[in-house]
Amino acid sequence: MSDRTRLRYGMVGGGKGAFIGAVHRKSIALEETADLVAGCFSSNEAKNKDTAQFYGISADRVYADFKEMAAMEGVRDDGIDFVSIVTPNFTHYEVAKAFLEAGINVVCEKPLCFTTQEGEELERLASEKGLLFAVTYTYTGYSMVKLARDMVRSGKIGTVIDVNAEYLQDWLIDEIGAGNQTTTKMSVWRTDPKKSGISNCVGDIGTHIEDTVANITGLHPVKVAAILDRYGMDLDLNANILVEYENGTHGVYSCSQVAAGHLNGLVIRLFGTEGALEWVQEEPDRLKYTPKGQPTQILSRGTGYVTGRAAQLNHIPSGHPEGLTYAFANIYHSFMSGVLKKVNGQNLTKEDCDYPTVSDGVKGVRFIEAVVKSDKNGSVWTEV
Amino acid sequence: MSDRTRLRYGMVGGGKGAFIGAVHRKSIALEETADLVAGCFSSNEAKNKDTAQFYGISADRVYADFKEMAAMEGVRDDGIDFVSIVTPNFTHYEVAKAFLEAGINVVCEKPLCFTTQEGEELERLASEKGLLFAVTYTYTGYSMVKLARDMVRSGKIGTVIDVNAEYLQDWLIDEIGAGNQTTTKMSVWRTDPKKSGISNCVGDIGTHIEDTVANITGLHPVKVAAILDRYGMDLDLNANILVEYENGTHGVYSCSQVAAGHLNGLVIRLFGTEGALEWVQEEPDRLKYTPKGQPTQILSRGTGYVTGRAAQLNHIPSGHPEGLTYAFANIYHSFMSGVLKKVNGQNLTKEDCDYPTVSDGVKGVRFIEAVVKSDKNGSVWTEV
Amino acid sequence: MSDRTRLRYGMVGGGKGAFIGAVHRKSIALEETADLVAGCFSSNEAKNKDTAQFYGISADRVYADFKEMAAMEGVRDDGIDFVSIVTPNFTHYEVAKAFLEAGINVVCEKPLCFTTQEGEELERLASEKGLLFAVTYTYTGYSMVKLARDMVRSGKIGTVIDVNAEYLQDWLIDEIGAGNQTTTKMSVWRTDPKKSGISNCVGDIGTHIEDTVANITGLHPVKVAAILDRYGMDLDLNANILVEYENGTHGVYSCSQVAAGHLNGLVIRLFGTEGALEWVQEEPDRLKYTPKGQPTQILSRGTGYVTGRAAQLNHIPSGHPEGLTYAFANIYHSFMSGVLKKVNGQNLTKEDCDYPTVSDGVKGVRFIEAVVKSDKNGSVWTEV
Amino acid sequence: MSDRTRLRYGMVGGGKGAFIGAVHRKSIALEETADLVAGCFSSNEAKNKDTAQFYGISADRVYADFKEMAAMEGVRDDGIDFVSIVTPNFTHYEVAKAFLEAGINVVCEKPLCFTTQEGEELERLASEKGLLFAVTYTYTGYSMVKLARDMVRSGKIGTVIDVNAEYLQDWLIDEIGAGNQTTTKMSVWRTDPKKSGISNCVGDIGTHIEDTVANITGLHPVKVAAILDRYGMDLDLNANILVEYENGTHGVYSCSQVAAGHLNGLVIRLFGTEGALEWVQEEPDRLKYTPKGQPTQILSRGTGYVTGRAAQLNHIPSGHPEGLTYAFANIYHSFMSGVLKKVNGQNLTKEDCDYPTVSDGVKGVRFIEAVVKSDKNGSVWTEV
Repeated sequence: MSDRTRLRYGMVGGGKGAFIGAVHRKSIALEETADLVAGCFSSNEAKNKDTAQFYGISADRVYADFKEMAAMEGVRDDGIDFVSIVTPNFTHYEVAKAFLEAGINVVCEKPLCFTTQEGEELERLASEKGLLFAVTYTYTGYSMVKLARDMVRSGKIGTVIDVNAEYLQDWLIDEIGAGNQTTTKMSVWRTDPKKSGISNCVGDIGTHIEDTVANITGLHPVKVAAILDRYGMDLDLNANILVEYENGTHGVYSCSQVAAGHLNGLVIRLFGTEGALEWVQEEPDRLKYTPKGQPTQILSRGTGYVTGRAAQLNHIPSGHPEGLTYAFANIYHSFMSGVLKKVNGQNLTKEDCDYPTVSDGVKGVRFIEAVVKSDKNGSVWTEV
Repeated sequence: MSDRTRLRYGMVGGGKGAFIGAVHRKSIALEETADLVAGCFSSNEAKNKDTAQFYGISADRVYADFKEMAAMEGVRDDGIDFVSIVTPNFTHYEVAKAFLEAGINVVCEKPLCFTTQEGEELERLASEKGLLFAVTYTYTGYSMVKLARDMVRSGKIGTVIDVNAEYLQDWLIDEIGAGNQTTTKMSVWRTDPKKSGISNCVGDIGTHIEDTVANITGLHPVKVAAILDRYGMDLDLNANILVEYENGTHGVYSCSQVAAGHLNGLVIRLFGTEGALEWVQEEPDRLKYTPKGQPTQILSRGTGYVTGRAAQLNHIPSGHPEGLTYAFANIYHSFMSGVLKKVNGQNLTKEDCDYPTVSDGVKGVRFIEAVVKSDKNGSVWTEV
Repeated sequence: MSDRTRLRYGMVGGGKGAFIGAVHRKSIALEETADLVAGCFSSNEAKNKDTAQFYGISADRVYADFKEMAAMEGVRDDGIDFVSIVTPNFTHYEVAKAFLEAGINVVCEKPLCFTTQEGEELERLASEKGLLFAVTYTYTGYSMVKLARDMVRSGKIGTVIDVNAEYLQDWLIDEIGAGNQTTTKMSVWRTDPKKSGISNCVGDIGTHIEDTVANITGLHPVKVAAILDRYGMDLDLNANILVEYENGTHGVYSCSQVAAGHLNGLVIRLFGTEGALEWVQEEPDRLKYTPKGQPTQILSRGTGYVTGRAAQLNHIPSGHPEGLTYAFANIYHSFMSGVLKKVNGQNLTKEDCDYPTVSDGVKGVRFIEAVVKSDKNGSVWTEV
Repeated sequence: MSDRTRLRYGMVGGGKGAFIGAVHRKSIALEETADLVAGCFSSNEAKNKDTAQFYGISADRVYADFKEMAAMEGVRDDGIDFVSIVTPNFTHYEVAKAFLEAGINVVCEKPLCFTTQEGEELERLASEKGLLFAVTYTYTGYSMVKLARDMVRSGKIGTVIDVNAEYLQDWLIDEIGAGNQTTTKMSVWRTDPKKSGISNCVGDIGTHIEDTVANITGLHPVKVAAILDRYGMDLDLNANILVEYENGTHGVYSCSQVAAGHLNGLVIRLFGTEGALEWVQEEPDRLKYTPKGQPTQILSRGTGYVTGRAAQLNHIPSGHPEGLTYAFANIYHSFMSGVLKKVNGQNLTKEDCDYPTVSDGVKGVRFIEAVVKSDKNGSVWTEV
């Protein structure tokens, strides 16, 4: 049994200049407990080497091919403890599969993959190999989302009777009417179905609604009735979705990439028999809570009345915004804590498992498939 | 041809202590151009007389029966110029019909009536008799709603591509699980289908969403796919409704009377190809406008940059809240301006007709019927 | 002893088109218990008659001169029960004095007058004659200000340790640098010191801060250290004022008519040993309350948890904005209730006296004088 | 001339568990261009070693004494390029002095020191030695503060005519009336004047107001009239300060650590002849801008209309909150960019100098001294 205090990790994707790879590295850096020691950062050889050099990676651990990386790192004594997969969506499945097969724990960007079948295979592989697998549904990492979860689970709002959630952006508004021009923001991947999957808007952000609501409430849709808007494009830019959960409760999810004035507007509103909660991603340090018949309360991160998991994951004094990078870091915090214990042969606690898993990723894929199917069939109720 | 400067009006319903009757009287009082001279305020004789006395109504114009009132006032030389109908919903139809038949202009509370058939009959009667007929869909009276209408109609947000509107209240939250007890807030009328109509929540507030959106944009739903929640009661307390307009644009309407923390939360959000608008009834003097790619603007009532109809209907300097009573008064303002011109034999302008009419009322009834039908048939798309 | 149920009132000022006179009339109309029967509406004869005719005033009770009106109405058997004075500020003193001397109760716009001496004379006269005298410091009429008062007085925020209040507008921003042109908004009265008094901004809106804070907390400044900004004009357009109350607590009052983006921004923030309160005039139906160490609460007018005086003065259901006119009406409500009881020989309750009185008006004048004096002497602490 | 791409830094203070040291390290980590190689983290030997080990510092570069560290690092070939000083306030002066004397660039927490004399000595030393010296006035690092600065400097709001700024917290509210108990939050350092300096609240947070306003507008107070509240403690917990700038413009600064409901409420409001700006630290990604006579605009970080320095310092897509750590990182970004160029013998650009310097720190100390002096002398205007 070892007595490790730090972890070693590798990255696939995330060459210099790539957005999401940098967020992953910086989030891990905030935790201060893991070192980047291997990578396959880019299919562009120069960029791959350049990135590796910047991060001080040994030449023998800079890989041109992710399969080689998985194989090699899987057998080294000082091999990586986990890999962060930040490649384009359409590659997630094969990259994740390679590392799982090599016996390496995985962190993968969402969406996990494009089909339920692929997702279930990854889920099964991780289970068989006894590996940890996190899917970075970022927003569940915010400590006030943890607080919302604790409040719902402890009955603060009673039984959930309606869910009203939305994720509105406007960065693709100029796609409307742009047709199949190759100069638009979407065009890089839109024209190749293999790269884009079956949905754009629901796949990219609608799935965050599903995951965040489920994380807080435990409620996954069992049926959906959806209408997607494409505005002349091949894939959806806007969607309104009626949902029904296992317990018969209903809700509505709206997502859009063409809603002028909305930047990254994930808003979760939960209505219960005893009260209501509202969380707005753009003001993540606050949580609005209304106990039935009483004034609405504004709860703030880092205060004395915030306890439980949200308090454990507090990093900066109240009133000093933590921001998205800490939400990411919180996901890594739990995941890496689990990996370290596994490496050292210790038992994992509930807190070590407090991150979105491959199973959550599969549920996300099922949701997307059902939404697209419902829309195709005239918005009829469709089982998830 | 007469040269009248003031109008005479009567009221059916609105005995002392009744809420909505008082709002009507006070709104008319704010306009300072009409006098209450006749009434049938209550089926309770004492209350009827007491109310009449308080308002200084001549004894011969206090009626025990609305039919008698319509008949008598219809033939007096100094008969009322219009009647305000503020009785319970289930009586609107017959009261309105009586006054129309007597040749008297009508203001009626919403919902206009319970069936499309009834509504169309009233619509036809008003048309045949050449009478003015307003339905007090209050919220279209706010001057910033007028501004929103002008902005949408003049292309400020381009083509409307998505509508997201809601009307959330929480005053019936304690009905959940109350069953058929007779002590609840709804119980007075809930137990008698004749009095309640086919819908509670959609009929009471969902119809305001439909009317306000239509008033601003000109878009009426042609199809709806709806899910209603009754939580053990006979009628709906909550609804989520997908809508499709004639031009193919989609939207979602949510209404609830069990959404903790929401008092009278009518919120209209309109997304277009060139920008977006948001209006919140609880902060009625503001209008949020985002021109595509530019900062969101907060427009305020009464300022120099607010022009057109919204400026005409401005009453108090900017920053001094006008409130609901002025929204009501604005509806009466246009209606009474029209009645006065009609009385004096003058032609009506567009501004004189700037209020919700009996036709809008009929559209509201059709919407409610389609929503209830869709829900009953498994939320399938249903024509309005 | 009489058994009157309605009151008769007269008005000085308030000719058609005048803003504040209309607000007074409409506020009284909302109360539905008093009739306008006499007036001296304008020094312009045609306008005076025109206004009188519009409101159906008998010809013999339309007066060209306010002194004549006071004298005549004071001796009629059916004389007015009170007069509303809505003339320009510089005339308040002499008009109010005339009606007091004639034994008539008075409602007067603020500021009460221009000098402490004048104010004290009115105060003494009202006292000697046993007359009621209200000064319409509007904002204390809002029911949520009543709630704030009740909360402070009952210890909800403990001992007040700091006050931070402001009243920001921007309607005179174009006066900056305009010099003595006669075409500016201020120019009508600015150029004549007799008409403008010693202060513009503090006199017009700073005095509202003083009155509203005092109304809620009972704290009147005993010392001030003030700096006024005139930006090239004769009178102040902006002021920042340090205050000290009798109990040694400090605070700061800021007022401006040149603060771009602020329309009628009266904001009262009270900090105590046990919590804090914040009230914003532009969102008058809400009150923000933070009990020490707990989440901030948003209290809303008309809800079940709002009790006491604020509940008594509730007019429209929660979530339906009442607006400024009801704040005004609440002042008239208490005043007229008191006048009616006096007329009928009944004893007045505490609620009948719940309005700003001539004594509050005098305190306002003293405050303005001290502020101007402090500024003149280099912002030194100056006794009020 | 060297061709370095990475920097080496050391830290004084910041042992494991210390808040502000961690923020510095994490901010530097976000920049990914400097490595921690030396430190004197704690006067507690075990903690010092433990921290050093955690960060992988060579044993020979872990120092028990900051003077030894300065001396040794100053002569090593691979010595640190800069030191971050995150020790208690009362030690800043001597630590900074030691490193300047050893020829090492300095980043020091605010307040820079306790007396103007000390500050000017550090300023002189840095200048003589040609060393870079940043003082981490955090809030100027936010990109939207950069945007505010650019907008003011380019005339968007015209001439600044009034400043209204505040910094409200409530974490010391329980100190009120606590007297000299040793169990309170302040007690650790409050009882020793040598450790606390002459001011608590103004020194800790009031100075941030002064620096942020000056950074944005270029306006430093030349006179202050201040009132401090101690509520029975030795040092101030609350302050209201009138200020006058060189150009005659006035403003008011309020700071408090006992304002219930306020967490870290730095709010800067700037009023000009052509418009106004408002920035709220707790919502740092937004900036409110009102062009005179037009609607208020909400500008958001990361959007297309945000250009200039604010765009250069953008890290995460709009709508995804960056938070405080990035504000800190932005300060380090400019400072380290400058140090790297200096090390490589290159010329520094304006952007390399875009951080608060030792001169800003000295101005902060002067401001604090003047405020305390004014308060002591009866709030008279006091030169800064």
